[in-house]
Amino acid sequence: MDFGAVRARAQSPPGLRLGPGAEFDVIRAMVGDDTELPADVIVGPGDDCAVLESGDSPWAVTVDMSIEGVHFRRAWLEPYEIGWRSAVAALSDLAAVAAEPVALLVSLALSREDARAGTGPALQKGIAEAGASVGARIVGGDIACSPGPLTLDLVAIGRVRRPVLRDGGYPADELWVTGTLGGAGAAVAAWESGCKPSAAHRQAFARPEPRVKEAQWLAGTGRVRALIDISDGLAGDAGHIAAASGCRALLSEALVPVAEGVEGVAGGVAEAPLFAVSAGEDYELCLAAEAGALEPLREEFQARFQVPLTRVGRLDKGEGVVLEREGIGTISLAGGFSHFEGERG
Amino acid sequence: MDFGAVRARAQSPPGLRLGPGAEFDVIRAMVGDDTELPADVIVGPGDDCAVLESGDSPWAVTVDMSIEGVHFRRAWLEPYEIGWRSAVAALSDLAAVAAEPVALLVSLALSREDARAGTGPALQKGIAEAGASVGARIVGGDIACSPGPLTLDLVAIGRVRRPVLRDGGYPADELWVTGTLGGAGAAVAAWESGCKPSAAHRQAFARPEPRVKEAQWLAGTGRVRALIDISDGLAGDAGHIAAASGCRALLSEALVPVAEGVEGVAGGVAEAPLFAVSAGEDYELCLAAEAGALEPLREEFQARFQVPLTRVGRLDKGEGVVLEREGIGTISLAGGFSHFEGERG
Repeated sequence: MDFGAVRARAQSPPGLRLGPGAEFDVIRAMVGDDTELPADVIVGPGDDCAVLESGDSPWAVTVDMSIEGVHFRRAWLEPYEIGWRSAVAALSDLAAVAAEPVALLVSLALSREDARAGTGPALQKGIAEAGASVGARIVGGDIACSPGPLTLDLVAIGRVRRPVLRDGGYPADELWVTGTLGGAGAAVAAWESGCKPSAAHRQAFARPEPRVKEAQWLAGTGRVRALIDISDGLAGDAGHIAAASGCRALLSEALVPVAEGVEGVAGGVAEAPLFAVSAGEDYELCLAAEAGALEPLREEFQARFQVPLTRVGRLDKGEGVVLEREGIGTISLAGGFSHFEGERG
Repeated sequence: MDFGAVRARAQSPPGLRLGPGAEFDVIRAMVGDDTELPADVIVGPGDDCAVLESGDSPWAVTVDMSIEGVHFRRAWLEPYEIGWRSAVAALSDLAAVAAEPVALLVSLALSREDARAGTGPALQKGIAEAGASVGARIVGGDIACSPGPLTLDLVAIGRVRRPVLRDGGYPADELWVTGTLGGAGAAVAAWESGCKPSAAHRQAFARPEPRVKEAQWLAGTGRVRALIDISDGLAGDAGHIAAASGCRALLSEALVPVAEGVEGVAGGVAEAPLFAVSAGEDYELCLAAEAGALEPLREEFQARFQVPLTRVGRLDKGEGVVLEREGIGTISLAGGFSHFEGERG
C-alpha cells in the first residue's frame, strides 16, 4: 500500500530466500553475508520467527513494529484498536511458524500528550486483550517519551515443537490461504480516498484475528510443508515461500477468496482479485501442501474455525510469482510492493 | 537528561517494585493489575529481562528502543555508533540479570533517504559488532520505511542459569557499581550546550561496553544479591533495587566513582557526584551484596576486567534514595528523573 504498511522481516540469508524488491535489498544488506547461527538458535534470518532451542519445546520469538502514519493513522483507529492490531501483527508471525503464543514484550514510544491523555492504558488494553485471545500475556517491555509518531514494537514469544517454515514447498504443491483477502486493504483504500470504509472492511483492519489455532491445527495434520503469514499481501508473501522453496508461485485469479465488497474500491469485479492479493493488511496464512493433501480436510477446518480455507494456486519450477488470469494469460507479480521505492515494482 | 534519554522498563507489578516518578506511573498503568505469569515464564514484569523456562538454562529476553532526537542525535553519532549504542542498551539488560548473550532481533524504522544513503548497513555493522563483542548474533528483525525519526528497537536474547534480579537486597547490604559514572552524560551535556565533549566522554556515550562478562563473573561468585544496569542513572536505578527489595538506598557522595573531567560540565567538583549519579547514559551495573562480601574480590575483579568496582553506599530500612553529603546531610533523590514531566522530580 502506498501508505507504507508493507513491512518485511530481516530474516533471510543474502540473495537466497526472500522475494525480489527494494526493501528486501535493504534487508539483505542489513543481514549481511554471514549466516552462521549460534549453536542453540534453530531458526535464524529467513523466516517469520527466530526459534531457540529448549528441549522438546523450542521458543519462537518475533518482533513487529507499528508506526503512526506508516502502519496506521490516528484518524482511522481508536487507541485500543491500535494496540490490538499491533499485537496481532506480532502474534501472526507466531502463527506463521505454527507456534503457541505465551508472552508479549511491548516497546512503546509515546508523546507526553498521549501519556497525559491516558493513551498508554488504552493501547495496553488492546495489546493485552489481543494477547489473551490466543493465550499470551504481557511480561515486559520498554517505554520512552518521544515527540515523534506513536510507535509500538511488539515482541511475541511462543512455544513450537516443530516449526513450519517457508522453505518446505516443492514444485506441484498446492498453495492455500485462510480467510478472505482484501477487506483490510479496502478499508485503507477507502480512508485514503477520503471515504468511510464499510463496517466489515473497517473491522478487518481494526480487529484482525491472528490465525494461531488454525495454524497449529493445520500443522498438526502433518500435511503443511510451508507456511507464512500474508500481512504483506499474498503476492509478496507467496513469493517468499517460492523463493525459500526454490520454486515459482502461480496464483489463479479465479480462485482468490476476495472479501465481500472489495470490488467497490478495486475498480470493479475484474480487478478485485489483483487488489486482494496485492493489498496486504490481512493477517491470514498461506501454506503449501502436496497436491490433494488438504482438500479432504477443508470442510472440517471450516466447520471447526468458521474460517474459509481455499486453494489459490500452486508451486512450480522456476522463480517469482505470477497471477494466472483465465483466458488472458499471466501477470507477473514478481516485483511485489516495493516499500523503499514507494510504488509497485 | 532533559533530552529525554531516560527510559524505563514496563516490567513491574503495580505500585510495588519500581521507584517513584511520572514515567513509572505510566508503566504501572500500562502493566495493569494482573501480575499472574504464564506457567513457563520464570520472571515477568518488574526486572530487566523476562526469563523463559528452558530446562536448566532458561532464556532471558529484553527489548530496548532508541529514538533519534530522544536517545541520540544524528549530529552526535555516526550511524555505526548509533547501531552500537542501541545494541548495547539491550545487551546491558542481559548483563543486568547476569545472562549470556546469544542473539539479537533488530526492529528498524528507516527513512527512504537513509535507505538510499546506505545508513541501514552502517547501523547493522554497529549492531552486529556490538553483539559479536559479547557473543550475540543478529537472527531476525523487522524493517519499516518511516518518515519519522530513525528508530531502532533491539531485542536481546541470552541464556541464564540463575538470573540475579532486583529484589534480592536486604537492609545493611552494600551497594556497588562497576566503572566510572557521568562520562556519557557529560558528553550529552556538552553537546546540548553547543560544546564539543572530550574524546573520553564522547567515547563513553558513543561506544559503551556492556558489562556482560563482569556480571556473569560477579554472579558466579554467589555474592551478588541484587543486580540492575544503571543506564537511567544510579540514583533512579538504585531506587529500583531499593523498591524491589523493600529498602531505602543510601548513596555516599564521597564514594561515587566520578569519571574524569565531569566537573567541567557539572558546575564544579562539588557538584560532580550528584551529576554522575543523576545523568544516566552509563551502561554500568549496580549491585547489592552482603556487607563485607565483595571487598575481598575487588582487586581480582579490577585486574581481570580493567574496570573499577566501587562501593557507593548501602541499603537500609525505609524507602526511596538519598545521597549522603558529608558534613551537610542528605539529598533526597526519591523522585529521580521524570521522563514524562521533562524535569527532575
